[in-house]
Amino acid sequence: MTTVPVPPAGVVGVVGLGLIGGSLARAVVERGGHAVATTRSSEVRRSAAAAGITVVDDISAVVEGADLVVLAVPLPALDGALSAVADALKDASEETGPTVTDVGSVKAPIAAFGAERLGARFVPGHPMAGTEHAGWEATDPDLFEGRRWALVAEEPVALDRWATAAGVAVAVGADVVPVTSTEHDSAVGLVSHLPYALAAAVAAMLDSDPRAGLARALAAGSFADLTRVAAGHPTLGAEMAAANHHALAERLDQLATALEGLAHGLSQSDGPAHLDIEAVFAAGRAGRLRLDAARSASVQAAARTLDRDELLELGHRGGWVSSADATRPGSELVSVRACDPGGVAVPGS
Amino acid sequence: MTTVPVPPAGVVGVVGLGLIGGSLARAVVERGGHAVATTRSSEVRRSAAAAGITVVDDISAVVEGADLVVLAVPLPALDGALSAVADALKDASEETGPTVTDVGSVKAPIAAFGAERLGARFVPGHPMAGTEHAGWEATDPDLFEGRRWALVAEEPVALDRWATAAGVAVAVGADVVPVTSTEHDSAVGLVSHLPYALAAAVAAMLDSDPRAGLARALAAGSFADLTRVAAGHPTLGAEMAAANHHALAERLDQLATALEGLAHGLSQSDGPAHLDIEAVFAAGRAGRLRLDAARSASVQAAARTLDRDELLELGHRGGWVSSADATRPGSELVSVRACDPGGVAVPGS
Repeated sequence: MTTVPVPPAGVVGVVGLGLIGGSLARAVVERGGHAVATTRSSEVRRSAAAAGITVVDDISAVVEGADLVVLAVPLPALDGALSAVADALKDASEETGPTVTDVGSVKAPIAAFGAERLGARFVPGHPMAGTEHAGWEATDPDLFEGRRWALVAEEPVALDRWATAAGVAVAVGADVVPVTSTEHDSAVGLVSHLPYALAAAVAAMLDSDPRAGLARALAAGSFADLTRVAAGHPTLGAEMAAANHHALAERLDQLATALEGLAHGLSQSDGPAHLDIEAVFAAGRAGRLRLDAARSASVQAAARTLDRDELLELGHRGGWVSSADATRPGSELVSVRACDPGGVAVPGS
Repeated sequence: MTTVPVPPAGVVGVVGLGLIGGSLARAVVERGGHAVATTRSSEVRRSAAAAGITVVDDISAVVEGADLVVLAVPLPALDGALSAVADALKDASEETGPTVTDVGSVKAPIAAFGAERLGARFVPGHPMAGTEHAGWEATDPDLFEGRRWALVAEEPVALDRWATAAGVAVAVGADVVPVTSTEHDSAVGLVSHLPYALAAAVAAMLDSDPRAGLARALAAGSFADLTRVAAGHPTLGAEMAAANHHALAERLDQLATALEGLAHGLSQSDGPAHLDIEAVFAAGRAGRLRLDAARSASVQAAARTLDRDELLELGHRGGWVSSADATRPGSELVSVRACDPGGVAVPGS
């Protein structure tokens, strides 16, 4: 568990106490910080209060008491929550009032709407910490330990606001990845939404198979791993897929083309086709080994002062930030401890 | 660990001491049985001997000393091994000499070739115990504990031979699923070969992505699970895919069609399409929950005497056998303890 106090100075406000919001509020409290939260469930209100979270009535009360407001509501409720925050802040200047972030799994539409309503104070975010479980019952104050947390750092996000949001993410154990919303959505379309859609499609294939009984009996580790996330709530999956429909559809088409190519290769006579098939598995192995290498690389954190382009370039290369401080309000520079795997050797194929 | 002696009476011969063959020979020895094995690697010969396995020079020596011969060689070497066994047995009658089985992940072509060369004594098999690791170094005497082990029970396999092979599989901890080779290949095409091919295709997609660095940084549990088996040796994957190319190509095409349908739904306006997408995730959830229910169902074993059709019907329904005895050589009945989940309730969608 990290020993960084949460937040360095200030109160974390959380709207929605499901898996992500509830885990965050609990993480803040467990690390000695102060969390103010609101939720519609009276049962969860009681549990949250018992866990040391200050429970308030509505979004405006969260906005009033917090230095960082984290909107941890389902995707379809996010526009409404952003508007409620904007209403509560209508008398605040650009420089005063809390920084606001969200935890939605899709960033481009939310970044656009949030920028319109909240301007430079809104830092769109996405902690990569979902599981197949949901709700307060599934919360875990260590949920963010060692996880990546994407935070949009492009215009019009103020870099000092970005550093505030990053500071809280780091304090609860996450590594913060600076992203543009477009790059984020394309990347998670591949590494998150595609696996969810695939898990659902393959689990449904099993279920409708005329040999489903035998197939279930023979299903081993590879199938169980592939379909694990299919157990999640279908509405969440559909909301995620619909919100990132452009990037996900592109990934699905890309994969369908690859699978058809492989199927075609398999139905050819087995001379050259066999070589093609081995090439597919060899490319897959290389890809997986490079992923493992990137994830397990021991990357030294280095203190650096970065401008916006440098910060975004760090994330583009696969780097992250393990601490962040605004140099001053309105500055176009941010002081970070940067972990940059750019120079780390990865195995060849 | 099971307490059943291995085998009830007799010696288990193993050809090939990789992950499966080596784990089996070690399992037999650890459970107080006698394993005779051959392998081409002199280093592995030394390790195997040190583990209590009787190492002999070649296949004919294994055949001579064993009651059950398990061919645990790579798929491309299997026809040669079957022929070597047939040569060693050319003077044996149908009723004398060892029972022979294999551990290949594809059954129809092997069953046909084996029946031709070895007749009723050959019981094609497939323990569902592969991992992304290979070789003697990866062997584990508990590898088969709680795993399913498919054994082909259709003509011309002799049921008393089937019971001999099943007895050894049960003794090392496996549940034995009686199958036809066609049903087996179709089922594992879905639950095993498709996950391997998908893992490779998706890991390769990541690797060739222009945003691979960022995508690797954001990859979380769902992507790691999906691509785990891509780390295996590409030659093994290609051999498996090539050997079961018909069933796998069918599954790949089936999935590609489903993914294209989902991609199309995602690019429509979001009224009815959203409902369609949720239906995909709901069907996936139902499929996964039924899989979990089938795998975790507490099924009572019942002593039964089955004919061939009843035995195959048990496997078709998703059932398995936790002990097997031939009633007598040449009998068309087998005495088993049958686990039949046919009547087990599974959750609805």
